[in-house]
Parts: sequence; C-alpha cells; structure tokens
Amino acid sequence: MTTFPKRIALLGSTGSIGRQTLDVVRRFPEQFSIVALAARSNVELLAQQVQEFQPDLVTCYADAPEVEAKARQLLPQALLGEQGLLAVATHADADILVAATSGLVGLMPTLAAIGAGKTIALANKETLVMAGHLVTQAAQRVGVPIYPIDSEHSAIWQCLRGEEQKDIHRLLLTASGGPFRTASLEDLKTVTVKQALAHPTWSMGPKITIDSATLMNKGLEVIESHWLFGVPYEKMEVVVHPESIIHSMVEFIDGSFKMQASLPSMHLPIMNALGYPDRLASAETDFIRELRWADVATLHFEDLDLARFPCFRLAIEAGKRGGTYPCALVGADEEAVELFLTGKIGYLEIAQLIEAVLERHQSIEQPNVAATLEACAWARRTVREIWKKRA
Amino acid sequence: MTTFPKRIALLGSTGSIGRQTLDVVRRFPEQFSIVALAARSNVELLAQQVQEFQPDLVTCYADAPEVEAKARQLLPQALLGEQGLLAVATHADADILVAATSGLVGLMPTLAAIGAGKTIALANKETLVMAGHLVTQAAQRVGVPIYPIDSEHSAIWQCLRGEEQKDIHRLLLTASGGPFRTASLEDLKTVTVKQALAHPTWSMGPKITIDSATLMNKGLEVIESHWLFGVPYEKMEVVVHPESIIHSMVEFIDGSFKMQASLPSMHLPIMNALGYPDRLASAETDFIRELRWADVATLHFEDLDLARFPCFRLAIEAGKRGGTYPCALVGADEEAVELFLTGKIGYLEIAQLIEAVLERHQSIEQPNVAATLEACAWARRTVREIWKKRA
Repeated sequence: MTTFPKRIALLGSTGSIGRQTLDVVRRFPEQFSIVALAARSNVELLAQQVQEFQPDLVTCYADAPEVEAKARQLLPQALLGEQGLLAVATHADADILVAATSGLVGLMPTLAAIGAGKTIALANKETLVMAGHLVTQAAQRVGVPIYPIDSEHSAIWQCLRGEEQKDIHRLLLTASGGPFRTASLEDLKTVTVKQALAHPTWSMGPKITIDSATLMNKGLEVIESHWLFGVPYEKMEVVVHPESIIHSMVEFIDGSFKMQASLPSMHLPIMNALGYPDRLASAETDFIRELRWADVATLHFEDLDLARFPCFRLAIEAGKRGGTYPCALVGADEEAVELFLTGKIGYLEIAQLIEAVLERHQSIEQPNVAATLEACAWARRTVREIWKKRA
Repeated sequence: MTTFPKRIALLGSTGSIGRQTLDVVRRFPEQFSIVALAARSNVELLAQQVQEFQPDLVTCYADAPEVEAKARQLLPQALLGEQGLLAVATHADADILVAATSGLVGLMPTLAAIGAGKTIALANKETLVMAGHLVTQAAQRVGVPIYPIDSEHSAIWQCLRGEEQKDIHRLLLTASGGPFRTASLEDLKTVTVKQALAHPTWSMGPKITIDSATLMNKGLEVIESHWLFGVPYEKMEVVVHPESIIHSMVEFIDGSFKMQASLPSMHLPIMNALGYPDRLASAETDFIRELRWADVATLHFEDLDLARFPCFRLAIEAGKRGGTYPCALVGADEEAVELFLTGKIGYLEIAQLIEAVLERHQSIEQPNVAATLEACAWARRTVREIWKKRA
C-alpha cells in the first residue's frame, strides 16, 4: 500500500505535461500535494498555479532578463535560474520529482533529486537518452525508482508488473507512423513544415511533432527503454500501429504478448507514475475518456520501413554505439529540426545533417555531465557549420 | 523461484488437452515428470503414454465392459473406474493435478486433489460452472491455487499478475463469434450440423464446437471467470474479436487496459499453468508459432448481439441466479446439443429447450456435490421430455 498524500515537486509546470500533472493533482487532493513548482518563462500561468496550489517554493528558470523582471513583479518570492531549479528538485518535503522540462535543463536537477532520495517521475526524454548511464547508476546506488511518464514506456512498465526480467523476449514499441506513414521517398522530398506538423493522433509541440514525423522520437524512446528496462537493443523492436490505441507490448519467452491500451492520453501515464503502485480511478476525473472496443472497431499493424525513416535508424545506431553518440544525436536533431522549422532546409536534409554530424563525432566513453552537454553543444554547432558550407 | 521438477498427475490424458499437456512435459523433461495418468476409453493411446512416461499409477475410467477388458489386456497394472480416478488425483507424489477430463467426471477427483493439497491446473469447464462455490471454498480453506488452462482465463490471469483486485474495473473476454458471427436470425433457422461444426479459428471436439457457435461456451467462460477471479457478473463483458489473437483483457479503474495475445494455441495456457510463476521458453518447443504483427495486420472488435446468441444470455442469467441453475444449464445444454448433433432438433431449438428447462428448474442454494449432479441429470431428462412432447 502507498502512503498518501504524496508530496510533489514539479519541474516544467507550465508545459503540456506539467499542466496535465496539475490536472491530476487537482482531482486527487487527498492523494497529492504540490510542494514546489518550477517553470521556464510563462510567468503569468506560473503565478496562477502558485495561487491555486500554494507551493512552499517556486522557481522561474528562464535565462532572460525580461522574464526575470516579470517574475520579480508577479512572483516576488520566486527563486531565479539554475539554483532555483535545483532547490525545487531537492526540496526537503518532496517525495517525488516530476521532471517535465524539455531539453537539457532537466538533467542536473534530476541527478540532484536522485541524490536526495526522491522518486523520479520522468517525462524528459533527453535526460535518459543523453545520460542514461549516469541516471540509472545513481538511481541504483541510492535505491530510487524511476517511473516513466510517456505512453510507450508506461505501457511496457504496466505489462512488466508481476513479471521477471529473465522472461522478457522482446519489447515492442508501437509507433503511429506519423503523417508520412504511407508517403513514398519521392513524396518526402517535397514535404512542407505544415504537412510535417499535422500529426494524425497526438497533439504536441512543434519539435516533438517533427521528431514524430521522422520517427526520431521513436528512436529516442528505444534508447530510453534500454535504460528504463535494462533490455539490450537486440531485444527491442518497433511496430507501426496507426491508431495509437495499443501503446506498446512485451513479448515473453513463451511466445505470449502482453499489451497495454487506452485512448490516446498523457493524463493516464501521469496517473500511473504518480499513483504507483495504486491505480487512480478515472471516474474521479473529467479527462480520461472511456475506450469502447466496438467504437475502436479496427486496429492495424505494419512493419517499419527503415528506408523511409533514416532518423530512426540513426537513433538506434547512436544508442548501440553508446558513449556520447546519443548526446551528439540529440544536439544534431535539435539544430536540424530548427533549421527545418524555420524553412532553411528541406525535410530529408534533417536526417542527412544528423548523419553527417554523427560521422564526424569523436565519442567519449562513460561521459560525465559536462561531457554529455559538451557533445550535444558540439553537434549543434557542427550542424550549423555543415549547413552554412552547403548553402 | 519454482522448485523443478514438478510432478504431475493428469486426468484425461488421451483427450486434446491431455495430449498437449504431454507435449509440454516431453519438451521440458527437467521441469516436469508424470506420476499418474488417467484416461477414459482410448486404451491404445493410454498404453503408449504409459510406455513413454512411465507413471507410477495408471487408471482407465470408462464405465464400459469392453473398454475394461481391453485395459486388462493392454494395461494389466491399471486401476479401473472412479476409485482409480481418485487415486490418480490424490497420488502422494503429485505436486499438481491437471484436470483435463470433459464433463462431470472431473468434479469429485478435483475436490479430492484440493483436499490432498495439490495445485490444480484446471481445463475442465463443468467443474467450476457447476460447483464453483465448492471448489473455490475448498481451495481457499486448504490454501491451494487453481490455475486456468483455457485461452481466455489464462489471458486474464496473465494480465492480473502484479495487479490488485481492487483495481479491476472489468474483465473483457474476447469471443471469435464462431461460424455465425455475421449470420442473420433468419439464416440461423436453417443452420446445419456441418455448418455449426465449422469453427473459424479453433479446432475442437463436436460438443464444444457447437457451444462455441451458440456462444454457450463464452457464457460458461464468464461463469468460470466469476469463480476464478472473484469478479461479479456486472464487471464482466464479452467483446467479439474474430481473429482470436487477443485472448482476453482486463480494464483497470484508471481506464487502462491490459491484454494478452498470441497465435491461437492451447499449448501456451498449458505452459503457463504448469510453469507458473516461471515462463517456459517457446524456443524449446516445436509447437509455439511466433506471432508477427505485420502478418496479423488487422484486428477487429465488435459488440455482441445478444438477440442472435440467446444461449449466451441464458448462461449469464443462470450464473447470476446461482444455486443449481448453472448445473441445470450444463445438463440442458449437453442434452440439447446431442439432440442437435444427431439431427433431432434444429439449431435454434437448442436455446429454446435450455430456456424451457431453466424456467422449470427448482434451484437449491449452496448445493453439495450430489445436488449439483442431480440438478444436471434432472435437466438432461427434462430436455428429453420436452422434446418428446413436442415431437
């Protein structure tokens, strides 16, 4: 049995996952309380959240004078910058850290929270992709669990409840296939930003939507799964499943599969991570829609065509190589997607630039935090350099 | 961890489940041994099995002089009749009883095995449908587990691993829908025996194939689930799923579903029941075919149309009423299906006769073994009487 209420520190409270985390806390006031909040730059919303949830500590971490000025005005009690972020992550009263920042900023606070013995509910992809070895080693040393906040990993986690590591034959991550699931290589040459931003089943920010179109996102999820579940790359596969109803599966050594399903929802993985080992009743919420199988009616499954999704292949190669390759992958992808979103390169050039960067990368084994961040920054610079030479 | 080898007593060794159980034992000689075998009337095959598995005890339980004569000739060491059946079920060296007889004959030996502290791997439907209260009470008192050998129940059992009873919102049993899934009520009036015996996804004996066509079988499985998993009828549903790939599902209170899948196979539930809590490696066998999702390609789900499957409705009503209603249901169904298989009644009359019998039934609450068997026998006689009056 769980001891409720659980006290939550939340990094990234004004982003999509952060706001949905607060939806859950709002509906389950007996189970959860908010002790600390951190947001980057949406000071107005952060101030509203502080008003509603009355945290003990609040931080605004944007490295921008105008945001800091606004924070001093609307939230005079707020800490500012990276020190505030660490203070939120390690708040003495917190039982659990929800790490829902985007990008690299979540890594240091997550490591600090692990050091302080906090349970980690992890939504931030880059933390595990870039520093999975550091995070999992630290969590094992301290004995702190890491619960995933993501549909695919939450599905696998649920399927593994009550099962043993030795009985895993394969993890099968499902992929909607994104907007270009059926596009030909020829079609992909002329893809516009608008087309790439039209994801068929999930509504998300622009960077992750492009990563979903290229399946870079699925590649990053495979790398995360490697660290979260301790499963080698040879035992992981991706199955294209356009309806996004089956969120992932585990195949066991006896040939039996377990799968987890729901209508697409990020609230559900959040509820799972916060409530574990208890399940929270959807009847108490207004945001979990009931899945009716006769309405779903049909589910489809296809193999993934690697030739049309080179970003996926690059991610798996980087994951297998290890060292700082995944950090270079993350940096190169961030920069290449930015070039695409601002109309400076074509869709197929995203993968080309990332591949060129990975070819030049000098990897370091077992990198520390500084080395992971440096590899990422190097990759961003190198994308720009290659692009400028070409242009 | 399990202590291997597990020593098995097997009732019904020459039937479909019995033979597949021996397939599993043959492939995992380090994990399992056979200490006792019982079969009804296939003396030749039983003699071969004795030769191969060298059990300590063997029984032939047909109540027929010519079978007994053959048994005395081919298996002079065999016990005969009900006493032999009880001796196999309670053999001192057995850890686990596989109860794979068909019909009523399995009930007494199963209760005896529970009394003797044996783990029960249960393939026999009637045992739980007719005497679920006796079996589960006895198993709880002695602290003996009952593991299901059936695709649907094995699926639910796997989905419930690591989960808590309080978190179950619903059990959803999948049903292929049988050969008449898309037939109209008008079509059903003229169904022939041959049509009813042509099951689309499973190859089984004639009685259970007809029960699958009428969905009586699915109704019996719901009653079994009620006893196996302690879930009320209001929390169980059937979903039609023609491909028989998803074998059943559990919906949890948070709106999350867990489902178990494989290609249709009875070996897999047997491996699960025998191996639990370990999973046995399919790579060691030649009978588990690998499921590839791109080959499966499409899964369908539909609501069940109760109007076209009255036997299902009758089963659920009998289950909810309890007492000896499920026993009368089993007896009436056996007799009505026999009348249909021998060409004496039409397909739709199966349900009509069962309904007429249940309307006349005087139920007894908390029946003992004798009362359950008597209610079943009464229902068989009553079907005959009603049919003769009509004819």
